[in-house]
Amino acid sequence: MIKFREYFNKSSQIYDIKKDSINALFRAICDERNSNISGYYKLPYDKKSILESSSYIKDNVKFLNNISNLIIIGIGGSSLGLKAIDTMLSHLSYRKNINLKFLEHTDPIKIEKSLKKIKLSDSLFIVISKSGGTIETLSLMKYVLKKYKIFKNEANKKHLCFITDKGSPIESFGNFKNIKTLTIDKNIGGRFSVLSTIGVLPLMILGYRVDKILLGARKISNNFFDRKEEHILKKALFLGNNRDKFHINILFSYSSVFKDFNSWYVQLWGESLGKLNSFGRKTALTPIALIGSIDQHSFLQLIVQGVMDKSVTFLSLHQKSYEKPKIPNISLKFLESSNFVNGSSFASLLQKQQLSTMEAIQKEGVPTDYIEIKELNEESVGSLIMYYELLTSAAGKVLDINAYDQPGVELGKKILVTKFKEKNK
Amino acid sequence: MIKFREYFNKSSQIYDIKKDSINALFRAICDERNSNISGYYKLPYDKKSILESSSYIKDNVKFLNNISNLIIIGIGGSSLGLKAIDTMLSHLSYRKNINLKFLEHTDPIKIEKSLKKIKLSDSLFIVISKSGGTIETLSLMKYVLKKYKIFKNEANKKHLCFITDKGSPIESFGNFKNIKTLTIDKNIGGRFSVLSTIGVLPLMILGYRVDKILLGARKISNNFFDRKEEHILKKALFLGNNRDKFHINILFSYSSVFKDFNSWYVQLWGESLGKLNSFGRKTALTPIALIGSIDQHSFLQLIVQGVMDKSVTFLSLHQKSYEKPKIPNISLKFLESSNFVNGSSFASLLQKQQLSTMEAIQKEGVPTDYIEIKELNEESVGSLIMYYELLTSAAGKVLDINAYDQPGVELGKKILVTKFKEKNK
Repeated sequence: MIKFREYFNKSSQIYDIKKDSINALFRAICDERNSNISGYYKLPYDKKSILESSSYIKDNVKFLNNISNLIIIGIGGSSLGLKAIDTMLSHLSYRKNINLKFLEHTDPIKIEKSLKKIKLSDSLFIVISKSGGTIETLSLMKYVLKKYKIFKNEANKKHLCFITDKGSPIESFGNFKNIKTLTIDKNIGGRFSVLSTIGVLPLMILGYRVDKILLGARKISNNFFDRKEEHILKKALFLGNNRDKFHINILFSYSSVFKDFNSWYVQLWGESLGKLNSFGRKTALTPIALIGSIDQHSFLQLIVQGVMDKSVTFLSLHQKSYEKPKIPNISLKFLESSNFVNGSSFASLLQKQQLSTMEAIQKEGVPTDYIEIKELNEESVGSLIMYYELLTSAAGKVLDINAYDQPGVELGKKILVTKFKEKNK
Repeated sequence: MIKFREYFNKSSQIYDIKKDSINALFRAICDERNSNISGYYKLPYDKKSILESSSYIKDNVKFLNNISNLIIIGIGGSSLGLKAIDTMLSHLSYRKNINLKFLEHTDPIKIEKSLKKIKLSDSLFIVISKSGGTIETLSLMKYVLKKYKIFKNEANKKHLCFITDKGSPIESFGNFKNIKTLTIDKNIGGRFSVLSTIGVLPLMILGYRVDKILLGARKISNNFFDRKEEHILKKALFLGNNRDKFHINILFSYSSVFKDFNSWYVQLWGESLGKLNSFGRKTALTPIALIGSIDQHSFLQLIVQGVMDKSVTFLSLHQKSYEKPKIPNISLKFLESSNFVNGSSFASLLQKQQLSTMEAIQKEGVPTDYIEIKELNEESVGSLIMYYELLTSAAGKVLDINAYDQPGVELGKKILVTKFKEKNK
């Protein structure tokens, strides 16, 4: 379903990855999985999210059949994964005709626009907040509660649902107000949570075969722990060991369907891998995400002739699955130099552009690897997600950091509270 | 209209910018402007684009009044600037109710979706290609020519228009086929072209007061050359002189209206400032663009605790202009900790988040600067665009590179042609 190819193993010493290092990294990941520091390792095997989501859907069949809008109130890890998967899969014929919207931005211009045409009667709002303390999410929830008079009667309450950590204040509030509340384990970090109920429930409501997403994730995970996906360990070792030389990793995705997956990757990589290491050294692999071929006209120049501090991962769809539309076989006077693509599919142009760009930057010595997806469906998407999560864990180990916390964002939150207090003095 | 503040001048030596260096850089920019290597310097003063666009619009008043879709076929510099300005200004009441669409991606999934509901009768297609050789643009143009039978009769031809370099093959083709063709000077690079006819004509069709955009650009330009915007020179010197330490510049924009401006900045910065310098050294300032507060939940951790290789430019709207909507004054049981924002406007939350984040990363020693726009309108947007173009020119000088070419993308184009020839053997 997915092919992975690396081109790291060049003659130069820095590309040399020892068998012992690979084994050491594998043992470290196994230890980490067993330590339960993050619950994401278990998600592909966990039936809880599927069972609880199915049961909610079964109990509300009629109500959910009349839904035209599914509105997620959540930010960061509570929105990016779900958005990524829906954008990659929305071409599937059985995806229900439900508008998926996200209320995440506290931007005044955006809020009013987003809700302009939304009536409560055909909408379901799902508030997703792990901690229950995210100020954007709570403020937007208050706005929705007021605008739609959600607590006016029991019928209105049906249009609201919560997904949160076990034991969080949102769970207490949900129980107190008699709002349907689903929970996830606290050790599943936001950016690693898309295969939990946070992704599963909304995706199931949208009509996707979520069991296949978990199946895809399980396959990669099984293979990895059976030592059949060694490229993950090798890539983590290459990137981690060469962090001072190639400290930026670019994900260059050749299709617009990867737009939101790109954002998910940036969060996963950025929040997980930008940390103080055990000895207090500031450490990071900086993620940048691009869309091809568009960004060949924007960022490629910098990759080729800028400082050699970047590795590039190409992600693309196998062209054979998309034979239409084709570039018409027309020759235009004065523009004959473009005829070499005539009669080809646009997909073939796109994939050849990706391969040409890859070759060109390899010639400059830029380390590259390449992920090709044969067909974009639930299973391949599940594999892609799990691949990136395992890669992030492995890179975190090589960098000697905790990939699962985000202590660096706390100070800003404290200053924010002070600023509001000052105002009210 | 726009306030600029830098916080670079800390005690540390690297922040020390000498008066002599500022003067030297100013002279270099003046020489460059006089050398005509790039025509963008003159655009704010050039009436040609306005006159030619007005005259086209006057000649086609009735036709343009019936347009519902304005579709730009163009990529990179031919689409990013226009998209950026329209997204920043689309809230203006007199912006016409015309759908602005871009055909730029050769992605098979995107092409068919984009044109699904588009009829020729109420659409105008503008093909924008400076060189006339961009393979994506020409392929998409052929697709449109065929789908809508544009050359079937004279009436259909009215729905097509070209903007291209003087003397390009597209100009020859346009004249040959009797298609309305507007030209720009060859020395105006794509990423510096938004204040030329490339931006002016479409923006005028959309109803914007384009003369005010040029006025805003002119004001910054006049001030800069009158030595009243020294912060531009200082910022370029700071970033250029410290390129080995702070080689990434982040633009952290606090409003969703800056989404496309961010992409424009990434292209401008990436393609202009990633180059071999005069002595063949690979040189760059790498651009990354974020949206606040969303990306506080995605990338901020990395800025705070990752490697100290980033400077951050904050861009935000003055909150006073957006007093609504407000965060309702509701206290929710178990969630009282969020009450500190109750009754404030969402805009005030957003701006305080921006200020808090800025303070927090300044404490870590990250160099920051801050652009605040009082009111988003044609004039301030024109100033913002010109500010960034002048800054890019100045940074290019400090880096000792040619900011106006992009030789690094040629090899990939050559390989692409080879790949198609191999296929047809």
